[in-house]
Amino acid sequence: MQFHLNGFEPGDPEIFDPAERYPASGAKGPVPAEVDVLIVGCGPAGLTLAAQLSALPDVTCCIVEQKPGRMLLGQADGIACRTMEMFHAFGFSERVLKEACWINETTFWKADDANPQNIVRSGRVQDVEDGLSEFPHVVLNQARVHDFYLDLMRRSATKLEPHYSRRVTAIQPPRDGDVRVTVTLEHDGQTETVRARYVVGCDGARSTVRTSIGRELRGDSANHAWGVMDVLAVTDFPDIRCKALIQSAHEGSVLVIPREGDYLVRLYIELGQLESGERVAKRNITIEDLIAKARRILSPYALDVKQIPWWSVYEIGQRLTDKFDDVPADECATRLPRIFIAGDACHTHSPKAGQGMNVSMQDAFNLGWKLASVLRGRCSPELLHSYSAERRAVAGELIDFDREWAALLASTHGPDPAKTQSYFIRSGRYTAGTATHYGPSLITGESAHQNLAKGFVIGERFHSERVIRLADAKPVHLGHAVKADGRFRILAFFGSGDNAAIHRLCDFLGESPSSPIRRYTRGGADIDAVIDLRAIFQQAHHALAIERMPLLLLPRKGRYALYDYDKMFCPDPNSDIFETRGIDRERGCVVIVRPDQYVAHVLPLDAYQPLASYFDAFMLEPPQT
Amino acid sequence: MQFHLNGFEPGDPEIFDPAERYPASGAKGPVPAEVDVLIVGCGPAGLTLAAQLSALPDVTCCIVEQKPGRMLLGQADGIACRTMEMFHAFGFSERVLKEACWINETTFWKADDANPQNIVRSGRVQDVEDGLSEFPHVVLNQARVHDFYLDLMRRSATKLEPHYSRRVTAIQPPRDGDVRVTVTLEHDGQTETVRARYVVGCDGARSTVRTSIGRELRGDSANHAWGVMDVLAVTDFPDIRCKALIQSAHEGSVLVIPREGDYLVRLYIELGQLESGERVAKRNITIEDLIAKARRILSPYALDVKQIPWWSVYEIGQRLTDKFDDVPADECATRLPRIFIAGDACHTHSPKAGQGMNVSMQDAFNLGWKLASVLRGRCSPELLHSYSAERRAVAGELIDFDREWAALLASTHGPDPAKTQSYFIRSGRYTAGTATHYGPSLITGESAHQNLAKGFVIGERFHSERVIRLADAKPVHLGHAVKADGRFRILAFFGSGDNAAIHRLCDFLGESPSSPIRRYTRGGADIDAVIDLRAIFQQAHHALAIERMPLLLLPRKGRYALYDYDKMFCPDPNSDIFETRGIDRERGCVVIVRPDQYVAHVLPLDAYQPLASYFDAFMLEPPQT
Repeated sequence: MQFHLNGFEPGDPEIFDPAERYPASGAKGPVPAEVDVLIVGCGPAGLTLAAQLSALPDVTCCIVEQKPGRMLLGQADGIACRTMEMFHAFGFSERVLKEACWINETTFWKADDANPQNIVRSGRVQDVEDGLSEFPHVVLNQARVHDFYLDLMRRSATKLEPHYSRRVTAIQPPRDGDVRVTVTLEHDGQTETVRARYVVGCDGARSTVRTSIGRELRGDSANHAWGVMDVLAVTDFPDIRCKALIQSAHEGSVLVIPREGDYLVRLYIELGQLESGERVAKRNITIEDLIAKARRILSPYALDVKQIPWWSVYEIGQRLTDKFDDVPADECATRLPRIFIAGDACHTHSPKAGQGMNVSMQDAFNLGWKLASVLRGRCSPELLHSYSAERRAVAGELIDFDREWAALLASTHGPDPAKTQSYFIRSGRYTAGTATHYGPSLITGESAHQNLAKGFVIGERFHSERVIRLADAKPVHLGHAVKADGRFRILAFFGSGDNAAIHRLCDFLGESPSSPIRRYTRGGADIDAVIDLRAIFQQAHHALAIERMPLLLLPRKGRYALYDYDKMFCPDPNSDIFETRGIDRERGCVVIVRPDQYVAHVLPLDAYQPLASYFDAFMLEPPQT
Repeated sequence: MQFHLNGFEPGDPEIFDPAERYPASGAKGPVPAEVDVLIVGCGPAGLTLAAQLSALPDVTCCIVEQKPGRMLLGQADGIACRTMEMFHAFGFSERVLKEACWINETTFWKADDANPQNIVRSGRVQDVEDGLSEFPHVVLNQARVHDFYLDLMRRSATKLEPHYSRRVTAIQPPRDGDVRVTVTLEHDGQTETVRARYVVGCDGARSTVRTSIGRELRGDSANHAWGVMDVLAVTDFPDIRCKALIQSAHEGSVLVIPREGDYLVRLYIELGQLESGERVAKRNITIEDLIAKARRILSPYALDVKQIPWWSVYEIGQRLTDKFDDVPADECATRLPRIFIAGDACHTHSPKAGQGMNVSMQDAFNLGWKLASVLRGRCSPELLHSYSAERRAVAGELIDFDREWAALLASTHGPDPAKTQSYFIRSGRYTAGTATHYGPSLITGESAHQNLAKGFVIGERFHSERVIRLADAKPVHLGHAVKADGRFRILAFFGSGDNAAIHRLCDFLGESPSSPIRRYTRGGADIDAVIDLRAIFQQAHHALAIERMPLLLLPRKGRYALYDYDKMFCPDPNSDIFETRGIDRERGCVVIVRPDQYVAHVLPLDAYQPLASYFDAFMLEPPQT
């Protein structure tokens, strides 16, 4: 898709009239007096969480935002492969794929040895290694990501709309056995109050919610200045449509990020060291300064800037808070969290690795299913401790990564293009968002049986692979079975050694009183409502007879008790999942996948008791009806 | 996507509330007094045409429909690969891919030799051969196709909405040198009049527009009765999610068509011979009769029907009109067409090959760019004769195909599953919509140089292939450069024998007074506004320097004269277009692609004069400004 040719216009580029490119957004009327979850902040983290909860008719949610309406022009733009996988779970990845700029190749530029005032290309790297994800790395204005979430919320069961123009003025934890936090909001000079079981602060680096729980961002002083500008420009720099890292001899660095619509481009421009405690805003840097600096770095290439939809200057630092909820570390055994923070409220860093929006959304994706499961009575509230534990560790890695990456780019000690390129390649899986690894916990198993499925690493995101659906020979991605619907998946890969294993497993899961599917699914609900069983066979689909499969794999669902034919899969002969994911062909295995697409456990096919124990540790039986 | 589990609901299944699944549709107020094009009928043909024209701010268009509002439940459902390619040109293929049912495999069932009252599977066939199209064969309710077009129209430059509840009562051709047809409409008991330069009747088998030009559908008497039902049902028939052709020993045939949402299925049920002149409606066949018949044919499998969103009975015949416009065959040299017909107004046949909606939309896709080009002064009106010439021939083939296919399925002379399967395979390219071949004409060249690109057959649709975009290494489909925007494409494939060929061709196209790009593009317009040049090189993208390319391949466009980086491509090493499409590696070639994605010509790279002559035959120079 091509757009923004005649100037940046916000909203949906497929709508011809700029005045109609975004619908009105925002709830009318006051905020509700009581909700299950109050989300503070309509950024990527807040909207990821709101979108998840909005799908649940039995969970009440309110999302408030200080700004008066939807974002039209955002600052973040990088969307990692892992985030695209999550967008697929939410159901709008195809819209992002269509509209975003794909980052296919990253190139590296250094000073020309013969003419050091000029830059020359020193290397090219495929941006994402083959097979790392079924999705590319893309770039799209954060405002459009907001739009997709707002659209999803509006279409959802609860038709959730943000309450704009709300500023949090006070947060009062529950008192005297109460279970609700009381949040006071200021709206057009009036005061509103919401009482919420849980409050989540997605309110950015200056988070009021974070402050209310006595936490702060700590980290390096910010002593390096950068400028950033989104421009429509004419240049003969040949890699202007690639991600390009340019390190000049003496003028500093430029990072080129091509943007959606084939014309727009973002340039990050190094402005140099700051004095200790100095703020770059004080330097009165103008857009003309930025352009002039970019030109000097890009020499001998010309840069003729035609339009500047957005620009800014900033200093970078890496800051992190110590815990993402309101429970002090030494009280976790005795107290349950009620107030959480996510995204920039927890961690801030430089924008140039394209990580910020991604990590923030993954924070919320991690928290969303946990909150929903607890509120719906499916899981014990101790589960909520795992949010801070898991995501604080990820944020720590992010800060470490960013510190090293920012130092390399800032070329404080003289640019080293070879080192930069080498670090970029080594960090590929990290920047793609696929390197996140949760350690063993209440919800993540030990790796005793990891050898049964070497490619489904326990604690890492489920690495999807193509398969063939048995019932209709449709080529699909197995990972796409994992929607953002709060359900666990049990993926049973059947070995070739024992043809009766499938029937025994289904007998256990379908009939045994200790089956987690039996125990944790409410009577009258569809059998896959809480835990969704899928089977993957080794045979080609022609070799299998659907009519001889256990009924648990052809469950009857809904008002008419219709068969669901979406539970059984066969390998795609062009990319056999047993081969590519290292699944033990003889023994097969069971892979448990969390609602946020992470591998929770790998177990032998006949490890019925360990399978049950995994769920028993944190799930609750529904009340008898 | 799974939906319709608890019963069929019309509209967008991604919207939770059924009451909000389709927006209001329809223009308010009276029809305009004068338009360039009046389209009669809001079916697939009418909407395809309207969607094309709605994108053009300089063409006025009105579409009227007898029914009071948008269709919620349609009868057609088959969407051929070729149609998906067209949907991509319109920009909504990804929505259809997501929502539709994919037909991956077709299975064949016959009477069991041992127990002739039972059926057994006799064969399986991959539904579409590998590599025939980048899109699958899918099935989706016609009403949803309408929705996508209506959405496109609403978002377009002209925000076109249908005028519903309009019945055509009279059509008066132009008189005394007038250029407008006068159409009288009845609306809520009132009379409205529209004067249109062109009128297109997309008003179905009982077309008023067809009658007004004195044409009629002629063909076989309809003497075979069928029933059809869309159902939610429980069955142990194992191929219920595949397209299945079932020919029982004595009870007749059933055709199973799985439908979108994973639960719905359509069954076509053979009801037997009719007396000469008999109408099936007179037999008072009930839905219970249909179900009972289907059960007998499906024996030994059970069929428990739970909901029936739609059912019907009909007799089939093949009928065709002799010409698709208002000019008698013997007056083509002296008269220009003003009134056209398309779709079911021209050809009717059985529904079971899934061709009807597809051929109708291709009729309109063929006509749309021609009407637009003439109205915009780009092409001479003689071009309009080619519509009837090209599409009447296609309709004739359709009728022939359908007659044979219907006879095979109807098993009038005893079922012959082997013959049915063999015919199905042989007809694969035809049913996929890719076999259409336009003969040489004003707009379709002779095949003297076909050997330069054996895989781009002159007169057939451009068979897309993956390529790598030079500027950013993005993997794209070359055919997806051809949008439904009325532009011609010149695709220049460069040979390895002469590296200067690219500069010479661009010199000619960019500078020569006889260059069609120079001649037919209005001064001040973007250089690719009428004819869009793209280049495909043989080298890998790493081996080419974008900065040394001719400026015609990096055109400057729009208000800011920005570079357009979307014009140059390299082979995808995994599927080299020079190899897969049989392009002469030494000599290269030029391929001209029509606005409706058909290959217009294949010429040597240096055949400048023949290239110019191709366009000179039907294009008009813009007025001097």
